[in-house]
Amino acid sequence: MSDVNHQVRLAARPHGMLTPEVWELAEEELPVPAEGQVLVGVELISLDPAMRGWLNDVPSYVPPVGIGEVMRAGGVGRVLSSADGRFAEGDWVTGTTGVQEYALLDGAELTPIDASLATPETYLGALGISGMTAYFGLLDVGRPETGQTVAVSGAAGSVGSIVGQIARIRGCRVVGIAGGPEKCAWLTGELGFDAAVDYRAGDLRAALRTAAPEGIDVFFDNVGGEVLDAALTRLSRGARIVICGAISQYNAAEAVTGPSNYLSLLVKRATMTGFVVFDYAGRYREAAREIAGWLSDGSLIAREEVIEGGVQAFGETLMRLFHGENTGKLILRVGAPDGG
Amino acid sequence: MSDVNHQVRLAARPHGMLTPEVWELAEEELPVPAEGQVLVGVELISLDPAMRGWLNDVPSYVPPVGIGEVMRAGGVGRVLSSADGRFAEGDWVTGTTGVQEYALLDGAELTPIDASLATPETYLGALGISGMTAYFGLLDVGRPETGQTVAVSGAAGSVGSIVGQIARIRGCRVVGIAGGPEKCAWLTGELGFDAAVDYRAGDLRAALRTAAPEGIDVFFDNVGGEVLDAALTRLSRGARIVICGAISQYNAAEAVTGPSNYLSLLVKRATMTGFVVFDYAGRYREAAREIAGWLSDGSLIAREEVIEGGVQAFGETLMRLFHGENTGKLILRVGAPDGG
Repeated sequence: MSDVNHQVRLAARPHGMLTPEVWELAEEELPVPAEGQVLVGVELISLDPAMRGWLNDVPSYVPPVGIGEVMRAGGVGRVLSSADGRFAEGDWVTGTTGVQEYALLDGAELTPIDASLATPETYLGALGISGMTAYFGLLDVGRPETGQTVAVSGAAGSVGSIVGQIARIRGCRVVGIAGGPEKCAWLTGELGFDAAVDYRAGDLRAALRTAAPEGIDVFFDNVGGEVLDAALTRLSRGARIVICGAISQYNAAEAVTGPSNYLSLLVKRATMTGFVVFDYAGRYREAAREIAGWLSDGSLIAREEVIEGGVQAFGETLMRLFHGENTGKLILRVGAPDGG
Repeated sequence: MSDVNHQVRLAARPHGMLTPEVWELAEEELPVPAEGQVLVGVELISLDPAMRGWLNDVPSYVPPVGIGEVMRAGGVGRVLSSADGRFAEGDWVTGTTGVQEYALLDGAELTPIDASLATPETYLGALGISGMTAYFGLLDVGRPETGQTVAVSGAAGSVGSIVGQIARIRGCRVVGIAGGPEKCAWLTGELGFDAAVDYRAGDLRAALRTAAPEGIDVFFDNVGGEVLDAALTRLSRGARIVICGAISQYNAAEAVTGPSNYLSLLVKRATMTGFVVFDYAGRYREAAREIAGWLSDGSLIAREEVIEGGVQAFGETLMRLFHGENTGKLILRVGAPDGG
């Protein structure tokens, strides 16, 4: 154990696309847990598109990260020392650790994980917030029925890849929208999507017409912009659009581009609904149990892309999300692979 | 009775704002009803923003009006001659008469009205499609609860003015958005709205903040564009947006402006839903009964603006809607006021 905690703090609010100047590498002395606190050695950090939103000084579903504060992040790690009777040294835990090597948290903020049941990486992906987001967004907000067509954007990402697979398990026709032929091949070849559309390949509307000839009953949107607009042209009557995110818009320096085809909602008697996964916290266990079952019987494939490099690599690793460079869950390894 | 039927037909598809060249005044010989048909002397024509949409050659909830066809319109009139046993000469009826002086329709396409219970004008307004749209859009799609805040755009129009009054009757705080101080004064002074915001007066967001300090629970949108975008900044958690129309966008020559603040749906766990009143046809009687009760006990005020001038005046009268010049239901008188 080092006696220094390296951290990534927010140095300045970004305007538009993120730049290295937004981040500041800081260090502090290793803190000591007070009564009820736990010191966690952070192993893995979850990288999420939503992080971009947390940097803007506007009211949202969580407060913005303050200038000078450690960047907010979900993480997995092991207990190094504990002043909370529920946790012992060596325990695997997950929580909002922040982008740092060591996190001092109240025991109440931590959830124990069983690293013998699934890899620690899985607890940031399919069994973590990504999986919860996919599960509740699709099933509770989108409410697909057997035989209906579900389309998902950002389909090769951490949430989208799980959305599509759950829809397949539920007996839907599944169309994924992703960037590039490799991602598309992964969706149809390995994950069992019925069709995949490469949004970079040209006429997205025409491609969706072919991929979803009977229209889209549920559209799960992680992307926004032109992708959302194209999907709006292909809605079935009574369609549900789930607004999970809008990664194409998060770095917009000016106003977000709204969906100019939104009047399709009227023509198709359709609904567009936003949701925040934290509202479902009371039901995470239920979802995790079902997802774990699908993982163990092989009906759901979780893929993580783990980037080595420690907290120093946070800023540039995060950009992989916005450049569409990752497939599956993007994770930054902070601690040594052996948990030391 | 004349032996010539003057009609307004669609001469050319408009591109952007309507121009006189779009319409063609035609005449035909007076038709004679075949078995099951009824010849109606049209008295009053309903003018509706939705008419603009019917002129575009794109798939929608009704087929577009064809070039050379009589312009589609709802109307009220009296039976001149009938070959349907359910209708007799002199009966008042309503139906999709089109913009013409005489309409030959199947009896099945006509609904008898009781002109002794309410004026014929009311059957195009509060007891017609406008009232049905307000009733089902607000109560079935918006689902306001007592004490919640309902905001409506196009609030001085035929639908909006009824939406706000029904919301008031149901115990909601009601905020109307309209153009100009006179309309706003009418909303708060005569119709009992709690607040009215003049969207032409400057900072719409700030005005909405004042008018709806606890946020908007139901937003009933007839306008789209900047008005919808401003409302999106004031949503309460779990808000419902009802997309009834987008009069600000109907004459857009290029793409419709989408709501750039649509990600508020996510932050506020809100829903945006489109609807088409025709889906509720099976429940019109239920709504008409309740609205008629409110009209007769004075809790709901219906206002109609009847423009004289016959079918010749159709094109320019329709433009009053898009210039925001009318208050209440806009109606064109086609026949003589005495029904002759």
